[in-house]
Amino acid sequence: MPAFVNLDKTTAFTALVQGSRPAPLSSLLNKERVESMEIPLGGGLRYNYASKFVDQSVLKALQALSDEVQSIEKYKLILSGETMNTGEGRKVLHHLCRGRLGGEVNFGGKELGAFYAGELSKIREFAESVRSGKLRSASGKAFDTVCQIGIGGSDLGPRALYLALEAYAREKGLLKLRAEFISNVDPDDANLVMSRIDPHTTLFILVSKSGTTQETLANETFVRKILEAKGVDPAKQMLAVTSETSPLAKNPNYMKSFYIDDFIGGRYSSTSAVGAVVLSLAFGPETFDAILKGAHEADKLALESDILKNPSLLDALLGVYERNVLGYPSTAILPYSQALSRFPAHLQQLDMESNGKQVNRDGSAITYSTGPVIFGEPGTNGQHSFFQLLHQGTDIVPLQFIGFKRAQTLFDVNVEGSSSQQKLKANLCAQIIAFAKGKQDANPTKNFPGARPSSLIWGESLSPEALGALLAHYENKVMFQGFIWNLNSFDQEGVQLGKVLTKQVLSGASNDTALQAYAGLLGL
Amino acid sequence: MPAFVNLDKTTAFTALVQGSRPAPLSSLLNKERVESMEIPLGGGLRYNYASKFVDQSVLKALQALSDEVQSIEKYKLILSGETMNTGEGRKVLHHLCRGRLGGEVNFGGKELGAFYAGELSKIREFAESVRSGKLRSASGKAFDTVCQIGIGGSDLGPRALYLALEAYAREKGLLKLRAEFISNVDPDDANLVMSRIDPHTTLFILVSKSGTTQETLANETFVRKILEAKGVDPAKQMLAVTSETSPLAKNPNYMKSFYIDDFIGGRYSSTSAVGAVVLSLAFGPETFDAILKGAHEADKLALESDILKNPSLLDALLGVYERNVLGYPSTAILPYSQALSRFPAHLQQLDMESNGKQVNRDGSAITYSTGPVIFGEPGTNGQHSFFQLLHQGTDIVPLQFIGFKRAQTLFDVNVEGSSSQQKLKANLCAQIIAFAKGKQDANPTKNFPGARPSSLIWGESLSPEALGALLAHYENKVMFQGFIWNLNSFDQEGVQLGKVLTKQVLSGASNDTALQAYAGLLGL
Repeated sequence: MPAFVNLDKTTAFTALVQGSRPAPLSSLLNKERVESMEIPLGGGLRYNYASKFVDQSVLKALQALSDEVQSIEKYKLILSGETMNTGEGRKVLHHLCRGRLGGEVNFGGKELGAFYAGELSKIREFAESVRSGKLRSASGKAFDTVCQIGIGGSDLGPRALYLALEAYAREKGLLKLRAEFISNVDPDDANLVMSRIDPHTTLFILVSKSGTTQETLANETFVRKILEAKGVDPAKQMLAVTSETSPLAKNPNYMKSFYIDDFIGGRYSSTSAVGAVVLSLAFGPETFDAILKGAHEADKLALESDILKNPSLLDALLGVYERNVLGYPSTAILPYSQALSRFPAHLQQLDMESNGKQVNRDGSAITYSTGPVIFGEPGTNGQHSFFQLLHQGTDIVPLQFIGFKRAQTLFDVNVEGSSSQQKLKANLCAQIIAFAKGKQDANPTKNFPGARPSSLIWGESLSPEALGALLAHYENKVMFQGFIWNLNSFDQEGVQLGKVLTKQVLSGASNDTALQAYAGLLGL
Repeated sequence: MPAFVNLDKTTAFTALVQGSRPAPLSSLLNKERVESMEIPLGGGLRYNYASKFVDQSVLKALQALSDEVQSIEKYKLILSGETMNTGEGRKVLHHLCRGRLGGEVNFGGKELGAFYAGELSKIREFAESVRSGKLRSASGKAFDTVCQIGIGGSDLGPRALYLALEAYAREKGLLKLRAEFISNVDPDDANLVMSRIDPHTTLFILVSKSGTTQETLANETFVRKILEAKGVDPAKQMLAVTSETSPLAKNPNYMKSFYIDDFIGGRYSSTSAVGAVVLSLAFGPETFDAILKGAHEADKLALESDILKNPSLLDALLGVYERNVLGYPSTAILPYSQALSRFPAHLQQLDMESNGKQVNRDGSAITYSTGPVIFGEPGTNGQHSFFQLLHQGTDIVPLQFIGFKRAQTLFDVNVEGSSSQQKLKANLCAQIIAFAKGKQDANPTKNFPGARPSSLIWGESLSPEALGALLAHYENKVMFQGFIWNLNSFDQEGVQLGKVLTKQVLSGASNDTALQAYAGLLGL
């Protein structure tokens, strides 16, 4: 069993802090560096770290840190089905949804790799029958819309992936069912979504692992009432994705149920049935398979102990260097691809919910910084928004760029000698250099300090394989950072207190006068 | 003329830093505090700061700071048409779009209040003729969609406001034209939007103040080519919103043009023609008037020199206290209203582009922190995402909650004794208390440290008036923070370097080998 040690107790971290800092990026960054500091990431993507604030000496120290915390050994424990979600006493098995990298994982009389694969094959069959028009709505019409009802991991990941491939699938003629999502308990959310869909041609997917999520159950009732008022029998148009032990399982209120289990964390569930049903219905099972293939490729690369062959591990280490040595408090995700418009919101959950912790995996308080604030919007939009602060603000924000050689759609126009896709890419390259090198100007208002580090994930195009690899890259990055910070990245105790107090407000059981006063203001 | 002094040179700031800190929030926060620490904000909204980390002594010091930097005098200079965008030599006149609070503002032979009002009245007339079906498309059909082509301030603000009132307007039968937006130069953006609209019933609005924005002009050509291919004459279905001196003005390529001028900054342009055309077409001119009315109310409150009667000034000062005295590097915007789903993205631009600066208004370097990172998503969604870090992460992130007594839509359901709207509000109240007070637990994993300060803006419902007040509140907050930090909040020099380098990449003129290498990777 590898040792679990706090970051500040490692020899390698002390060495890293005491070691020398790299020369300024403006002096380091040249052609050779851009072309050499790059490694494959899976799904045809590559991870380029030429514009990170790093040199051979720092890389050597980061390798030593990775070795000392036994990153790869810990990842192997996850793959082998060890109880790595310690606080909740659970295995961590999202990798197993997309391929096997460890041995068999048995639990409760089942081999779980076979269980996940079995669910996937049922989903495939179901999606094909809907997409072919064999399975129709109660009114005999073909389904043209799928509406997922879920929140958090049951919403952000699947929604980000749907948006990421909507234009791609439309272009390739694969988009058979348009997807909608209802997540917020705010009735305005469900009312607006319901106002723009045809209940007679919409399939609903209720997603809740526990079957007890307050928002999701309220939205289920919401949708059922509307369907009933329109003469649609919800039991004939609503599926459940849940665990076999939840109240939603084997329940006649749903035309069909697909299963996950406690070992698939919400924010890691996009490659399980939680993402599989909606994405297979929308784009077809082959497209979903391709996502899994890309994710599995990234998972395999994450097994490399040489950090220069392991992009998610290297990304994790560089992030720790920026957070704990250089002291940068946030990180921006900047995809130069409109299809990735909600991918930063998914990563915000993935990262901040996993590593926004102040106790280690044994439950002891730690004194160093853990997960940063994560935010982002697509370029070039962000350039006309918050990039001002990134270039000339008083804090340095490390940047994660993502870009592609080709667009997902074919039609493009030439304006002033370049296509829109060329402009998009030229902006991306220009920004990396502007952030890294800055520009001296006699007028301080026009002075750019530079020294803003960034990485670039790039590839031919945002294909399903590339998307799967991108998703898994970040999941694995977050996992490795959790190992380095000695956290349990797989629980979320920080969401519990709000739930308890909410119930107290609704039942009138709270005797906190401030809470009562706030409730009074809002007419509760 | 008031004096412009750096924050660290003021007597009041030194006193604030040296002054005592308030007692812990968990001991301060009770019924009396919640009910008394609240002031009107305009549009029927109220600003509650009971859960801010503040006491009478800090409030007194903040009042002294506001007085010393002459906040109100500087605001009055803006209202009177002084050249307060110093670097660019421009007036700052967005307040004048929604009502007059200073005297006449003359420039270039025009009185600008009358100019803005005149454009608004042309827009009203035009919107009415489209909405009534009098003005129809070339094919004789009524318009049912309006598509805005613009980026940055021509996109984020109008889009956020459209989404904020879409469900409201639908419920009230006011939604005559659905709005779409094309912003990114990524061809996937325009292709996807164009694939879901009917070009024969869509009115396009091209928005660019200068008429030279690269992305917007590329997207214009993009749309024109598609329209022409479908037999639609773009000159009969495309409007321009621009300045009178731009190449788009008085141009036969557009069926009509509406004007703004250099004194309306992009991120402050939602209440000018930039927002007026699209929102008046979608919701009707009366709805837009109500937005202006709410904004004007907030602008009037911003004239109060007593910080306890001036919510945007108080919000600004509390933000400076959190940033420069307590040292918190970011701020989260958390609207408990799905309608405000993109409002945080608008505020991200507004705030970070205005105050993400490291030189003061005279162009001298400053050494204190200025604008924080701004991010956010609607609750309850955020609770199932990044709230983990907010509750138990190692950095404190000040929070800005927004909530309403009633939803915009009427249909709701009762599940387990409460409606969805009640659940939404109960969650909001519970979160404020959970963040402020935390909870001691023998198990450190379940321990909540509390001491996370938040404010709450609340009202009856998200009406157009409330939305206008909310918008202006944040504009004025950012303006006051700019005064306190002694910045020019109205330029954006930080966007220029990227533009220059992009042009070099596209023309092959760069001799930076690293830039060439990145361009090579991406196939440029």
